[in-house]
Amino acid sequence: MAIITIVGAGMMGSAMCFPASDNGHQVRLVGTPFDKNVITRLQKDNFHEKINMPLPEGVTAYQFEMLDDALEGCDLLVSGVPSFGIQWFSDNVLSRIPESLVVLSVTKGLEVEEDGSLLPISEAYLKREKDRGRKLSINSIGGPCISMELCRRLHTSVALCGSDSDIVHWIASLLTTPYYHIHPTSDVVGIECAVALKNAYAVGVSLAIGMAERTGCELSNPQASLFGQAVREMLRLTHLLGGQTDSVIYATSDLYVTINAGRNRKLGELLGQGLSFKEALQRLPGVTLESISVITNVAHALRIRHEMGTANLNQFPLLRHLDEVINQNAPVKIPWNEFG
Amino acid sequence: MAIITIVGAGMMGSAMCFPASDNGHQVRLVGTPFDKNVITRLQKDNFHEKINMPLPEGVTAYQFEMLDDALEGCDLLVSGVPSFGIQWFSDNVLSRIPESLVVLSVTKGLEVEEDGSLLPISEAYLKREKDRGRKLSINSIGGPCISMELCRRLHTSVALCGSDSDIVHWIASLLTTPYYHIHPTSDVVGIECAVALKNAYAVGVSLAIGMAERTGCELSNPQASLFGQAVREMLRLTHLLGGQTDSVIYATSDLYVTINAGRNRKLGELLGQGLSFKEALQRLPGVTLESISVITNVAHALRIRHEMGTANLNQFPLLRHLDEVINQNAPVKIPWNEFG
Repeated sequence: MAIITIVGAGMMGSAMCFPASDNGHQVRLVGTPFDKNVITRLQKDNFHEKINMPLPEGVTAYQFEMLDDALEGCDLLVSGVPSFGIQWFSDNVLSRIPESLVVLSVTKGLEVEEDGSLLPISEAYLKREKDRGRKLSINSIGGPCISMELCRRLHTSVALCGSDSDIVHWIASLLTTPYYHIHPTSDVVGIECAVALKNAYAVGVSLAIGMAERTGCELSNPQASLFGQAVREMLRLTHLLGGQTDSVIYATSDLYVTINAGRNRKLGELLGQGLSFKEALQRLPGVTLESISVITNVAHALRIRHEMGTANLNQFPLLRHLDEVINQNAPVKIPWNEFG
Repeated sequence: MAIITIVGAGMMGSAMCFPASDNGHQVRLVGTPFDKNVITRLQKDNFHEKINMPLPEGVTAYQFEMLDDALEGCDLLVSGVPSFGIQWFSDNVLSRIPESLVVLSVTKGLEVEEDGSLLPISEAYLKREKDRGRKLSINSIGGPCISMELCRRLHTSVALCGSDSDIVHWIASLLTTPYYHIHPTSDVVGIECAVALKNAYAVGVSLAIGMAERTGCELSNPQASLFGQAVREMLRLTHLLGGQTDSVIYATSDLYVTINAGRNRKLGELLGQGLSFKEALQRLPGVTLESISVITNVAHALRIRHEMGTANLNQFPLLRHLDEVINQNAPVKIPWNEFG
């Protein structure tokens, strides 16, 4: 039995309580300052207001002020913060833990550097720690997982990546259950890049869903054409960053499930219906859209690389068009002829 | 302008009339003996009863008895027969054409050989022609295309493969329209293998749709897990047969669109609901299921190769299970733990 501390009581962080607790570990769920009310309610009667169900018995909820207590003697730290929270997590959590404490991140995203490099979240954390003269073991989990379904203990297959194979297998052994299937891999860049990209491309494929609603007819072929182009560009980008083909499989199945539901699909749908990006955003108040920063960062990085001659922006017509729609107020006009 | 003769007035063969005719070619649509009534009606008032719309002006319909007339002076022969019709097509059409006539096949399937080889349709045709001492140019088209949507001139992206790049590009130039996007490739085995496999795996992924209906709850994570495993096994099989990763992208988007609708999805759905294969078949009277022969042939080929040590059947747990359900009357019990 281990002690597992999860920081971030949003959907995904909270969902991780289920496999962790089912395996008999002592689980401590620590809210960020955004989770104050969720934690207060959990401390009252163990009911989680966001996932709308009680957490498993034996999970203890902590307000962020009690982080040190929650970290006391813990074996594994899980980060459940969204991508816009990584600076906060780095400054307020990672900087305070011993270097020996293993970290698992569920956050998806890519940071862009001045030279057009794209850093997966784990590398973005490691860079900040390096600036502090420290070295941590940061591992990541990614793949098709709707958090509510993990809470309901439905079969879920994900990849777990990290640079140290022993540590990756150890984390997998802590969290694998008969319903949570964890596949260890050493392809950190591939997995993190691929699963971040799927949010961007979910917007792209969902354009056809909105177009179908606007025109009142099924558009399966156009949607499949967009899906194929999305997979093609995810594969190219993952290879460009040094990741492997097998990791793109997780992005592909993650893309598949993301298009079925969720916020990024809704954005694509609204854009496909003919709304401008600004109008679409007004229909999605208070919603976190990871896709926007991924589209913006990756397009920015590709433009830098294109100028430097280290990438060909023309190989990413769908991503480029998404960037035009989101950042240059362009109307949706899918570049079908540029696909391939 | 060219003369294009299409044999097979089913959905896909008939759909090919639209881009061909829109490009100004003279199009001759020849029915197989199964298409007698369809052709009779077309000859009366140009209305196609199966696709439930008129064909474009300038398409001429022929009964099969008039094949020689339809082949007179033609530049390209298109085969629109289903996979169970390839022996018939070889004996009754290919054997009668001059070797100089270029052929394009839209048929999806894989034939199994005694040594566990799997032949794509074009190679199966070439083999039969070789036995006749003849050599033909057989090219294939594949990718996500619901034929009704091609008839409605919706954006559709497919791959066109053949061994002679000049011929492939020439065919693409004949059929490419502003809505029909054709991507030439030389990866014959990859494209034909991949698009045949997607019918098999559409049954596999759709199991989760049936299970969701039976249990009354969403099963997105399980469905995505099946989708990922399907892509993984399609990639492995395509590589095993010598095809390329890029070709699997067409199978992936084809799988995506096939799961949304169609006969193979329905079979998977019924099996996932708990029906045996026999019971499921009774609910699908008169329906052609390309998936069954693909599952059976590929599983058979993999077993032969497994014994010969040239393939590892354990790398294909989803396909193996589908074969057990279809050919050994096994109940559905998805091998989640073997995925990866």
